[in-house]
Amino acid sequence: MKSPLDYLQENRERFVRDLSDYVRFPSVSAQGHHKQDVAACAQWIHDHCSGIGLDTRIESTGGNPIVVAKTPYRAKRPSYLVYGHYDVQPAEPFELWTSPPFEPRIDNGALFARGSSDNKGQHLAHLNAVEAYLKTGTELPCNLTFVIEGEEEVGSEHLGEFLKKNRAELKCDTVVISDNGIPSPKHPALTYGLRGIVAFEVIVHGPSRDLHSGIYGGSLENPAMALAQMLAKLRDKNGRIAVPGFYDDVVPLTTYERKQLAKLPIKESEYKKFLGVPALFGERGFTPIEQRSARPTLEINGLTSGYQGEGSKTIIPAWARAKITCRLVPNQKPATVQRFVAKHLKAICPSTVRLEVESGHGGDPYLVSPESSQAQAALRALKSAFGHAPLLMREGGSIPIVTEFKRQLGADTLLLGLALPDDNPHSPNEKFDLTCYDRGGRLGVHLWQELASTS
Amino acid sequence: MKSPLDYLQENRERFVRDLSDYVRFPSVSAQGHHKQDVAACAQWIHDHCSGIGLDTRIESTGGNPIVVAKTPYRAKRPSYLVYGHYDVQPAEPFELWTSPPFEPRIDNGALFARGSSDNKGQHLAHLNAVEAYLKTGTELPCNLTFVIEGEEEVGSEHLGEFLKKNRAELKCDTVVISDNGIPSPKHPALTYGLRGIVAFEVIVHGPSRDLHSGIYGGSLENPAMALAQMLAKLRDKNGRIAVPGFYDDVVPLTTYERKQLAKLPIKESEYKKFLGVPALFGERGFTPIEQRSARPTLEINGLTSGYQGEGSKTIIPAWARAKITCRLVPNQKPATVQRFVAKHLKAICPSTVRLEVESGHGGDPYLVSPESSQAQAALRALKSAFGHAPLLMREGGSIPIVTEFKRQLGADTLLLGLALPDDNPHSPNEKFDLTCYDRGGRLGVHLWQELASTS
Repeated sequence: MKSPLDYLQENRERFVRDLSDYVRFPSVSAQGHHKQDVAACAQWIHDHCSGIGLDTRIESTGGNPIVVAKTPYRAKRPSYLVYGHYDVQPAEPFELWTSPPFEPRIDNGALFARGSSDNKGQHLAHLNAVEAYLKTGTELPCNLTFVIEGEEEVGSEHLGEFLKKNRAELKCDTVVISDNGIPSPKHPALTYGLRGIVAFEVIVHGPSRDLHSGIYGGSLENPAMALAQMLAKLRDKNGRIAVPGFYDDVVPLTTYERKQLAKLPIKESEYKKFLGVPALFGERGFTPIEQRSARPTLEINGLTSGYQGEGSKTIIPAWARAKITCRLVPNQKPATVQRFVAKHLKAICPSTVRLEVESGHGGDPYLVSPESSQAQAALRALKSAFGHAPLLMREGGSIPIVTEFKRQLGADTLLLGLALPDDNPHSPNEKFDLTCYDRGGRLGVHLWQELASTS
Repeated sequence: MKSPLDYLQENRERFVRDLSDYVRFPSVSAQGHHKQDVAACAQWIHDHCSGIGLDTRIESTGGNPIVVAKTPYRAKRPSYLVYGHYDVQPAEPFELWTSPPFEPRIDNGALFARGSSDNKGQHLAHLNAVEAYLKTGTELPCNLTFVIEGEEEVGSEHLGEFLKKNRAELKCDTVVISDNGIPSPKHPALTYGLRGIVAFEVIVHGPSRDLHSGIYGGSLENPAMALAQMLAKLRDKNGRIAVPGFYDDVVPLTTYERKQLAKLPIKESEYKKFLGVPALFGERGFTPIEQRSARPTLEINGLTSGYQGEGSKTIIPAWARAKITCRLVPNQKPATVQRFVAKHLKAICPSTVRLEVESGHGGDPYLVSPESSQAQAALRALKSAFGHAPLLMREGGSIPIVTEFKRQLGADTLLLGLALPDDNPHSPNEKFDLTCYDRGGRLGVHLWQELASTS
């Protein structure tokens, strides 16, 4: 009988073609005009799951549908759930892509396309592993359910409801998610912590319409200047967020954690070069690794005001707005942090303009013990799949649904990322390394054996 | 014989139709895709001038063409030049217009359209006056040349060269420009001062591409935050521009001027309501009239960074930019002021980002004596045309070419605005009051008599 690992080896090229097909869908959940592409993409992954032998259905929600795919159920075996998302970030600005974002291109051992690493390639690797089990007739030591949703990039609004409604069916021992990164194929890693997030928009309203800056300029507040002055006050010169209460709930890093994080193979000079910045900058007293994974932030994601076209337009804009997200660490709460920021903005807003704060999505931070038996099983599987000793790390990104799985199903999540540091998720020229894609398949093969052995 | 004033009266409706035709051209000089509309508009005003009996030609420049139209030359008469511009501001944001910007609508005694008051209606009023002289066979006591250009809204780049090249032909005693405003038809005014302008863009470059704010956020400077913090430092809490050297060349207002400006019929409470702001704001120690006409400013005209679409995109933007204009008063110089601002920005720019300052157009401020014989003639003509005693005022807007006329032709300019305070130039729902349009025609009839009588 052929082994699942052999099957993976033999089907490598076809797996790449599958991924190419999958990333052609511009399944951008944040943009209403891609609604049909999102639906078509859900249908594609449904058909794929079905085709490899999974019991598959598309479940409608109040938003984008969720694809559920299950291995044939066998009693008295542990059950695991694999989560992924088929929606992707907006691809703008298009002009910065070397090739069109939804026309996959293979170059230098990587597949370039929006959604390739975040997250289509990563959950497709797990599906490849299950396909290898099923097609080779190898017995799976567990029951597996894939939950692949279409709203991760806009806050997974309907996932919680879905989990609650299907709680009995989805009951599992552990959730597995590959939606994050590792330092390199030689440094596989288990991620034991995630940052949370809270998103909101700040709008400063000035005059009732854009005004001629010559005729009126000087006699009224410019909302763009008012916004700039308010934003400027949100961070001090030491990189600390200058919002009263912001750090109140932050659990300090332990000495052990700081030691572990320091093992990650990242050189500041190379990191700086990789980012393309003249110098690094972050909260004083912390290393860049700590700053970007274990400390909270407040970032401006977008600024909009007045005239943005060619040439100049001499106006005082009617309004100015900033899109903001805060990254949160245990035990900060999204709603509390947003309240602190909004309260502070209100306190520093001049009486010459009107302030509006629009709430966006949020997600709690997450932390699990790397010493649990599941975590240890995952570390063994990582070693087998990659052939290198795995590291422990915390991730700066947010996977808000990790806390939702804990809340609704009571299950902890193993974060087994497959993306590389230069994969450009959320940026132009997103890619997915084909070696990682392959190792991801192998990881799936080893993982279910290792996990089942602990149950 | 019919008098020019009778002719104006009899042709009022047709003059409105002419203006309606003229404003239909989206002659937006700042936007490359309107190039052909700009050319068609030049052709229209050429044909109109020709049709009323002027010797007319279209003169090409390195940019948009200039229309030159002359009355039949007679020696031993004074020569005057009337300036106007057929190009208009961009109409964005379109959705704030009650009716489409280039489909004229008459409502409540005003004609609504982009360019109606700035500047098509104002110079068309002068053309109507000349038409009245020519069509009634009334002798003009002077030689008149109309110079109507197509680049005023983008800095009149080619006008200086044109004036220089045609200096002999364009030699004149006085230039007349109606491209500004008066408080009301009951308060006609001669404008004796104009603010200058200097436009530039500030670009802050951060990472080489947009970055995932979760994965990297906290370890590098956010260019939008860096820009906000730099912009914030450009103005202090007293409304003073906090740029070393900025006020060095400012000529203080005299007691006489402050007294004259205080006569303007503007109530702060009504002004605040008109602007639609919760409270006025400006440089401490000056009245709103002074702040907006006789004091320099630094205004943000536009802010752009990161993601601006629907929903959120969790990125650290690669760059952030601000469009800025400074309004200048005598004796500030555009290049000097821009140098001061750029120098200061450089001084306060953190080493974690890269600063770029892109130069835009500039224009000197302007001030003439209201006691000259030409100014006195204009005041008499204003009184005859409007039936009310004229005021003296300074205008906050910029007409950079006024200084160009002085430099190239040695002629002073009379600024005889016809726009009203609520005409919304540069804003959505621009309009031109039809009473002012009519009085503008009458002003033309009286003005040439009064001016010629002083020569």
